[in-house]
Amino acid sequence: MKIIDGGVTTPKGFKAEGIHCGIKRERLDLAMLYSEMPAIAACAYTQNKMRAAPIELMIQRHTDKIQAFVVNSGNANAITGPQGMKDAMAMVDSAAKALGIHPQLVGVASTGVIGRYLPMDKLEQGIKDIAGKLGSGREYDHRANMAILTTDKTIKEAACQVTLKDGTVVTIAGMAKGSGMISPSMRTKHATTLSFITTDAVLTKPPEWKWQECINKSFNMINVDGDQSTNDISVLMANGAAGGKPVDDNHDFWEAVLYVSQSLAKQVVLDGEGATKLIELKVTGAKSDKEARTTGRWIISSSLVKTAIFGADPNFGRVLAAMGNSGSEFNIDKVRLTIGSNGEEVILFEGGVPQVKPCSEEEVKARKLLSEHNISMHLDLGVGNGAAEAWGCDLTYEYVKINAEYTT
Amino acid sequence: MKIIDGGVTTPKGFKAEGIHCGIKRERLDLAMLYSEMPAIAACAYTQNKMRAAPIELMIQRHTDKIQAFVVNSGNANAITGPQGMKDAMAMVDSAAKALGIHPQLVGVASTGVIGRYLPMDKLEQGIKDIAGKLGSGREYDHRANMAILTTDKTIKEAACQVTLKDGTVVTIAGMAKGSGMISPSMRTKHATTLSFITTDAVLTKPPEWKWQECINKSFNMINVDGDQSTNDISVLMANGAAGGKPVDDNHDFWEAVLYVSQSLAKQVVLDGEGATKLIELKVTGAKSDKEARTTGRWIISSSLVKTAIFGADPNFGRVLAAMGNSGSEFNIDKVRLTIGSNGEEVILFEGGVPQVKPCSEEEVKARKLLSEHNISMHLDLGVGNGAAEAWGCDLTYEYVKINAEYTT
Repeated sequence: MKIIDGGVTTPKGFKAEGIHCGIKRERLDLAMLYSEMPAIAACAYTQNKMRAAPIELMIQRHTDKIQAFVVNSGNANAITGPQGMKDAMAMVDSAAKALGIHPQLVGVASTGVIGRYLPMDKLEQGIKDIAGKLGSGREYDHRANMAILTTDKTIKEAACQVTLKDGTVVTIAGMAKGSGMISPSMRTKHATTLSFITTDAVLTKPPEWKWQECINKSFNMINVDGDQSTNDISVLMANGAAGGKPVDDNHDFWEAVLYVSQSLAKQVVLDGEGATKLIELKVTGAKSDKEARTTGRWIISSSLVKTAIFGADPNFGRVLAAMGNSGSEFNIDKVRLTIGSNGEEVILFEGGVPQVKPCSEEEVKARKLLSEHNISMHLDLGVGNGAAEAWGCDLTYEYVKINAEYTT
Repeated sequence: MKIIDGGVTTPKGFKAEGIHCGIKRERLDLAMLYSEMPAIAACAYTQNKMRAAPIELMIQRHTDKIQAFVVNSGNANAITGPQGMKDAMAMVDSAAKALGIHPQLVGVASTGVIGRYLPMDKLEQGIKDIAGKLGSGREYDHRANMAILTTDKTIKEAACQVTLKDGTVVTIAGMAKGSGMISPSMRTKHATTLSFITTDAVLTKPPEWKWQECINKSFNMINVDGDQSTNDISVLMANGAAGGKPVDDNHDFWEAVLYVSQSLAKQVVLDGEGATKLIELKVTGAKSDKEARTTGRWIISSSLVKTAIFGADPNFGRVLAAMGNSGSEFNIDKVRLTIGSNGEEVILFEGGVPQVKPCSEEEVKARKLLSEHNISMHLDLGVGNGAAEAWGCDLTYEYVKINAEYTT
C-alpha cells in the first residue's frame, strides 16, 4: 500500500465539484460526486431513530449501484416531515435530470442545521449549474470537500494505492466532514459525519459485511460529543475503472480501504468542535474485540477524561472509572495504562497500583507529554486477546462556546 | 406530607457531626451519622465495575441493620487495591470501637480524589474525636453535610413529615453531596453521589424494592457529566424511634421518601460542576415508564442539549436527536416538545413540524424563557402512557475549567 496525495477524483472515472448555491451566506454549500459508470456501492447510515429525510430516502430506495451523489451543507433537512422527504427526492430527480442518468443511480445527503426546510429554488438551480462543471483533479477534490463542511475548520481527505498481483494499480480515496454531533454508530443498510470513499477497483457485489467491519474499526470508533447525528452516512463507491481482478476478498485492498477510513475518521476527530488534541487510544487484553471496542468508546466519550486531557492531567482514575462503566471484564491486578506522545510514554497504572505519585518527576514528565497535540493512550485489560483502537479529542472552552452560540 | 426545615438529625434518635481531620487542607472532611438504636437499612451502590474500596466492603459485608455511618471526603479510597480495602475496614473498626457498637452495624463511604491512599493516622484520630462530639440539631446537620462535600458549592438537604393514620408523626430527612462524576445508575444490594436519608418511622424489613423504585425516580434520573462514579452510594436508615405502625407499605410514607430523594437529587444537579441552570424534564406518552426514563436520561445527558440550554437556544433539533438516540419508540406526528420557565412555556415542536420560526416573536420569547435559571421541558412521545421525570444542568465554560484544573 502506497499513501499518495489524492482525493475523491484521483481514482479513475470519478469527477466532482463544489459550488455556492445560496444555502449558506458565502461559503460553498453544494457538492456533487460523479462516476463515469455506475459504481458498486455500500452505504452505512446513522442508527439514530430520528433520521433525516435524505437518510430515510436512501434507506427506502436501497440501491446496490450509485453513479452520482448530491450533497448539501448548511441545512440537514432533518425533522422536516413529508416536505423534507419531497425535497430530498427533488434533489435526486434534479441531479438525475441534469446528469442524464436514472434517479435510482443518484444518492443524496445533507448536513447542517436541523428543522428547517431546504431552499429548493436555490438548490435546484445549483444542481443544474454544478452538473455542468464537474471535473477531476485536486482543485475539484478540494471544492467538493469544502462544500460539505459545516463547523469544520479544515477539509479531510486521504488516498492510497494498491498494486494487485496481476499488476493492476487501484486507487482508494476519500473525503469526509464532521466536527460536532459526532458519535457515530453506523450500520450498513440501515452513519453528522459524512464520508465518501471512491475507488476504481473492481467489486462484483456490494461489500456490506466488509464495509461494516471497516466502519466498526474507523468511523464507529470516534467520538467528539457523544451525540449521534440524525444525518450520518458513509459511502463506498467502486466503479471498476482500473480494471484488473475483482478485489471482493483481496486483503490488501481492504487494508487500504481501512487506512483511508481510519485516516478520515482521525481527521474528523482532530477537527472536533473546539478540539486542541487528538487522543489515540489502544485497548488490548480484552475478553473480545467487541468488549475492547466498547471500552474504547466509553473512555474517549468520557467528559472527565476529555477535560483531563485538555488540562494535561495524567488522571488515570478517570480513565479506569470510564473502563468500569463500560461493563467490560478486566483484571485490576493485570490492568496496565500508559500515556504518551512523540514516541515517549509514562506508565500510569500497573499491578493494581498507581505508578505516578503526585508531584513526582514522573508526574511532571506525564504532564509534559500530555501538553502535546497527539496523545497516545494504551490500556490493557489483562483478561484476553481482544483489541481495538479508538480516537477522541479533548473537551475545551471552545467546544462550549461553539455549541452555546451555534443555533438550531 | 408537610415539608419542614430539617436535616439528618431531625428524625428522632439520630445524631451527627462533621469535623476537619486533615485529609483536606482546611475544610471539613470527616462526617459521622449515628442512630441511638440500630436502624433498618437499605443501600444502593454504583454499578461501575471499578468500585471504590468502601463500596466493595459494603457489598461484601451486606447488612440489613446499620447504626452508624462514617464518611470522609477529599479522598475516594478508589483504585487503591488491597491497602484500600484494609483502610476502609479500619475506618469501620475505629468507628465501632469509638462508639462501642459492633462493626457489622457500621457503614463506610468515601468521596474525593481517586487513586491515593487514605491518611489513616489522621482519619483514626479524627474518628475517635468525632464520636465524642455527636449531637442533634441544625448545626450538627450542617457540619455533617459540609464534611461530605468535594467540589460542591452548597450543602443539599431536605426534610418532611407525614402523619400516620394512628396519629404518629414520622419525619424523613436527608443530606447529599455531588457535583461532578454524576450519572448515577445505582442498584440496591449491589449507587460519586452520596446520599443519606434518615427516618424515625418503623420499618420491619429492608425495603429494597421500594428503595430501588425511589432511586430510579430520583438519583438515577440526574446527570451532570455522564460519568458514573466509582463511589456512588445512597442509604436509607429507619430507626423506628417515632413508634406507630410499620410503614413498609404505607403509600404516604414512600411518597415522602420520594420527595426527599428527588429534592436532594435536584439539588445535586443544580450544584453540578459549573452549572448555571437546572433542567427539569418531563417525558410522557412513552411506550413504558422504562422507555420514558431512558429517553429522559439521553436528553439530559446530551452535551449538545446542555450547551444549547447554556446558550439559551431553543434548539428542539438537539432534543429530538437525543430522543432518537435513546432508541425509544415515538410517533413523530404526535411528538410534542415544550420549554419554559416561571410557569410560561413555548411549543417548540408539534404535529411533525417545528413551531418556532427563526427570528420570530416566539423565538425571542423562547430565548427569554431559556435565560432563566429553572428551565422546564416537556416531551411527549405520542405512543403510550409511560412517563418519567429527569433532571440535568447546562454545560458551561466553568465545567471545563473545573475539570481541566481539578487534579486526580
